[in-house]
Amino acid sequence: MNKIQDRIGYHFKNQNLLHTALTHSSYANEVKKGSVCNERLEFLGDSVLSIVVSDYLYNHTKMPEGELTRLRASLVCEQSLRRFAEQIDLGESLLLGKGEQQMGGRKRPSILADAFEAVIAAIYLDGGMDPAREFVLRFVEKELESHRQKAFKDYKTALQEIVQQNPEEKLSYVLLGESGPDHDKRFTVEVRLNSNPIGKGSGRSKKNAEQQAAREALELMGYSK
Amino acid sequence: MNKIQDRIGYHFKNQNLLHTALTHSSYANEVKKGSVCNERLEFLGDSVLSIVVSDYLYNHTKMPEGELTRLRASLVCEQSLRRFAEQIDLGESLLLGKGEQQMGGRKRPSILADAFEAVIAAIYLDGGMDPAREFVLRFVEKELESHRQKAFKDYKTALQEIVQQNPEEKLSYVLLGESGPDHDKRFTVEVRLNSNPIGKGSGRSKKNAEQQAAREALELMGYSK
Repeated sequence: MNKIQDRIGYHFKNQNLLHTALTHSSYANEVKKGSVCNERLEFLGDSVLSIVVSDYLYNHTKMPEGELTRLRASLVCEQSLRRFAEQIDLGESLLLGKGEQQMGGRKRPSILADAFEAVIAAIYLDGGMDPAREFVLRFVEKELESHRQKAFKDYKTALQEIVQQNPEEKLSYVLLGESGPDHDKRFTVEVRLNSNPIGKGSGRSKKNAEQQAAREALELMGYSK
Repeated sequence: MNKIQDRIGYHFKNQNLLHTALTHSSYANEVKKGSVCNERLEFLGDSVLSIVVSDYLYNHTKMPEGELTRLRASLVCEQSLRRFAEQIDLGESLLLGKGEQQMGGRKRPSILADAFEAVIAAIYLDGGMDPAREFVLRFVEKELESHRQKAFKDYKTALQEIVQQNPEEKLSYVLLGESGPDHDKRFTVEVRLNSNPIGKGSGRSKKNAEQQAAREALELMGYSK
């Protein structure tokens, strides 16, 4: 139990809570009848996870509601939680029934995701919201960083999606100039929201210059924070 | 603004938060362009509501996960939140665009439910989790009371639903005895889980005695708390 607590980064005052969080229903049903499984903790952990992520996104970004909702959903989905669980080898420490164990239960995404939520709840019940928040954010901040790198690769699309939430707003890209010889041209492009310039960029192609302009606009709007 | 704060039962240090919580997007878009609407607060309030309700249900009942999830969903659904909003006449205090106002926006369930979540978030940001919890539970505890009265009217069904989550478990009702003359018979019934008695009840019909036995079993299992 100490190893998993080191990997979780939290040591429990009440070890029973950790034990319950690691107990899958297959173990409670088969191996040790009547013992408590992690399903109720999972129920609670789901909400703890949600408030921690929501609070963080609300206070650390300026995203509008639609973006916030999409990003929260992707951070708390089974795929993400499974990856978080794998980062601390949670599967190794789970108590599973024999059948489940033989069927590869330690690697099953739903089992890992549920147990991860149960661990969040166990920390919350044992130490309160602060250590639960600290635990969750360790994974979420890292995940957000890689999201950012992927999601904002195509800056024009990202900017378009944000702007079109307001149907009256229109984006346009305006070529300000080109310079250099044919084999080494540089383009400079300005992106405008309605008629207001909101970003400028340059590159070796118009397309690339537009991407850079969109990236600057996103930065100025606070999205790349 | 003071009236609505009295009805909410919380006075804001930062009045802007309350103002934002009461501002529907139709107002922000039409009436006062560029002002902030309550959509981001609604995003956050959704999660505050969820953790308050989950924590309460987890700690105040012994329900298994399936029941907890169903009950939470019914407490935080649009219909419930609209009713909560109506209890404090939230519609009266909303800032709506002219069109929305003429279309009866002050009574629209989605607008009321969203604003109620935004108010929860505003309290959370202004005063922290404790006053937000206090605000939410005022409505939730009352709602739970009326849920209980409805949901547990049919005790046999309720007990059956709980027990059948464990496929091996079987309920049976056993007539222990009848007494009294034909026009005033009393039946006594015992309900058993597998072969163990878990509740007893009596009534003027077998059916009624079974309901009473199921009710006692639910009580002993902690469900009517």
